[in-house]
Amino acid sequence: MEFKISKELIQELEQLIQNKNDQQLEVLLNDMHHADIAEILDELDFDEATYIFKVLDSDKTAEILLELEDDLRENILGRLSAKEIAEELDELETNDAADIIAELSKDLKAEVISELQDVEHAKDIVDLLRYKEDTAGGIMHKEMVKVNENWNVLTCVKEMRIQAENISRVHSIYVVDDENRLKGRLSLKDLLTTSTKTPINDIYIRKLNSVTVDTEDIEVARIMQKYDLEAIPVIDELGRLVGRITIDDIIDVIKDEADKDYQLAAGITQDVETNDSIYEHTKARLPWLLMGMLIELIASYVIKGNEGTSQKFYTLIIFMPLLSATAGNIGVQASAIIVQGLANGTLKQFSRSYFSKEIAVAMISGTIIAMMVLGYHTFMYGQFQVGMAISISIVVVILFAAILGTLVPLFLHKNNIDPAIATGPFITTTNDVFGIMIYFGIANLILGF
Amino acid sequence: MEFKISKELIQELEQLIQNKNDQQLEVLLNDMHHADIAEILDELDFDEATYIFKVLDSDKTAEILLELEDDLRENILGRLSAKEIAEELDELETNDAADIIAELSKDLKAEVISELQDVEHAKDIVDLLRYKEDTAGGIMHKEMVKVNENWNVLTCVKEMRIQAENISRVHSIYVVDDENRLKGRLSLKDLLTTSTKTPINDIYIRKLNSVTVDTEDIEVARIMQKYDLEAIPVIDELGRLVGRITIDDIIDVIKDEADKDYQLAAGITQDVETNDSIYEHTKARLPWLLMGMLIELIASYVIKGNEGTSQKFYTLIIFMPLLSATAGNIGVQASAIIVQGLANGTLKQFSRSYFSKEIAVAMISGTIIAMMVLGYHTFMYGQFQVGMAISISIVVVILFAAILGTLVPLFLHKNNIDPAIATGPFITTTNDVFGIMIYFGIANLILGF
Repeated sequence: MEFKISKELIQELEQLIQNKNDQQLEVLLNDMHHADIAEILDELDFDEATYIFKVLDSDKTAEILLELEDDLRENILGRLSAKEIAEELDELETNDAADIIAELSKDLKAEVISELQDVEHAKDIVDLLRYKEDTAGGIMHKEMVKVNENWNVLTCVKEMRIQAENISRVHSIYVVDDENRLKGRLSLKDLLTTSTKTPINDIYIRKLNSVTVDTEDIEVARIMQKYDLEAIPVIDELGRLVGRITIDDIIDVIKDEADKDYQLAAGITQDVETNDSIYEHTKARLPWLLMGMLIELIASYVIKGNEGTSQKFYTLIIFMPLLSATAGNIGVQASAIIVQGLANGTLKQFSRSYFSKEIAVAMISGTIIAMMVLGYHTFMYGQFQVGMAISISIVVVILFAAILGTLVPLFLHKNNIDPAIATGPFITTTNDVFGIMIYFGIANLILGF
Repeated sequence: MEFKISKELIQELEQLIQNKNDQQLEVLLNDMHHADIAEILDELDFDEATYIFKVLDSDKTAEILLELEDDLRENILGRLSAKEIAEELDELETNDAADIIAELSKDLKAEVISELQDVEHAKDIVDLLRYKEDTAGGIMHKEMVKVNENWNVLTCVKEMRIQAENISRVHSIYVVDDENRLKGRLSLKDLLTTSTKTPINDIYIRKLNSVTVDTEDIEVARIMQKYDLEAIPVIDELGRLVGRITIDDIIDVIKDEADKDYQLAAGITQDVETNDSIYEHTKARLPWLLMGMLIELIASYVIKGNEGTSQKFYTLIIFMPLLSATAGNIGVQASAIIVQGLANGTLKQFSRSYFSKEIAVAMISGTIIAMMVLGYHTFMYGQFQVGMAISISIVVVILFAAILGTLVPLFLHKNNIDPAIATGPFITTTNDVFGIMIYFGIANLILGF
């Protein structure tokens, strides 16, 4: 049932493009879903993709534009005139159109806007451009059904018919006063079962969740999920209804947020994708690598400082990678649990009971690992005393890593820094340096080399 | 506008519970949203939460039950009789009810099902219990509006009114034949603008996305997002319409999937949360720690084998943490980009062009880092030759880590193993061992100690 791209299809399309057989291309693609066509265009080279794009109707291409990968979209837009871009945007919902305009150069932006045919639509798009990307204003759209509290049911139904024409999904009917201030919502059922002369004022529901234009997008996502809403109205500082956010807008927010955590944990700053350039990849990744390197230079300094010629020093050295890895692993585990707890709301701040739980887990894990290392070391090298020193150090380092792993993300969160950084290279390398210091320090105390 | 839990509210509730002032409790909580009440109950202790739960009406408590944290829900369910649980389930949608039943013990399960009042509802719930959790069958619900292709518009509207009563959001009207096989969907607009005698057969839309009961849940999520669907019908092997999945069901799938990747990267097997027990935490985390430890024992063996008494060996040792960390970081970066590329579909398999890009990024980063280390080493210790050996090894190790980081997740993906494992402790520690081997090997070749 589902569409699958085939090599044959791609070859057929390339052949048709070469022969400039526009008619056959249209026949082949006309019945396809715009998301499928976008998937096909992403497989073709830029010239071929642009060729097909120009063959298709603008009601189709507008939607395709939204689904394309960034670099292809940029390329195609670069080959269109301001007027042609405006034609595409006239077909789109306000928020999608605003997103595309936001990607254009400043000059082109103004030109495209002036070419938009539908003045109301243009005004709405310009309005949306004012808001920051990661706020309710930045993700809302202008398309919605709203009625005046002073109307009666008949006027209301008439007006709704006009408004609903441009809206794919009604979800809710919002009620405003003469100043456009949001007052409540209307149930479709009530509207259809009440006499046509009933004033809206008598039947609308006063209780309604809403967000303001500057509410953070992840907060909007949280509210909509918590209350299981499919749409939420957006108001400005004066309580005026200015837009609406639907659940499909929110899915992207949720995914982006999860992706960002994952990327921070992996030491990638921006949202790089496989098809970004070498420069972009290096820019997103090298700073973390360099930072990690600089921190680890401190580690080299610590080792150098502890260098001894005794056999004991050698024995410590050979377990250093084990120690680093174990401490790193437990630290990341501890941080990741905190980061997720903060993200899904099961944890709000430092909790003594959770902290002691984490210490217990670290103690249990640390002891088991230390005992195994002690056994291995005694068996392999027969030095029980050195083994004991190493094992005790391992427990302490693991404990320390777990504590740091728990406290650092909480500290970052409290200071409004994304706690997901605490699962990334900065903390793991820092942890490494502390671990090595503690390791040599304790072993030194016990063994006295 | 939004609800916020306050200490005062919690104290007031605790006071009312102590005084057994049920009436006041009801007054206080009756106007609240069930999600807010669940948030409050999560803050109280089990006895208090159960007390409030029993005071409230079952139409409210049923919804609250769904929102509670797992351990509290389990606790409350444990204090209810089979009949009481059944009363709660009668208020819920089929999929939510099935999820709760699935958590019960085998004996209790049967008892609760036999106590369900609404026989149709019970049948639907039992039907849902058959499907695996992570399939379309496992997340779909039975509530939907379906009409027969042989009906006319009038019969259709009448039937719809009856069916729609139990459904919070209609989304789509599905058309089936006499055998209940899915044929297409009906647009509400067409239904309302056609004469009442028109046969459904003349007006329904034949083209319709659907999934089968055993489609993986993440595949359902992908399809619904790609085609921007708010609901999708689910059919069985014979093409019969058996359920429906809505976009809010999918949000959980998307979040769980993202969480799982993050957890695998952090070395946590199960979905542990801050409020899980020490045992559960240890069970989810210790295996990864032990595996990391065992792999690193190999590293200790490699170092032991290369042990020399020369000054050169010492110099190699002090940069070992730097080498491990840098290789680890670049390996995780490479893997994470692949994992995300596979997840969002921008990458489908091994791509030569991406592979060469990754090698370029690794070469650039490796060279920059190696040159900085060479500079530092020459400045600090004045041994240019040893510095060169270290720097060359660093470039090779980084290159190796990037290649492994790129290929391993692709290999895992091809063999149907979750590629996110490649960003976790297993690969980072393995990488570490290889890195140390290469490091000593190359340095040994150059320096000949």
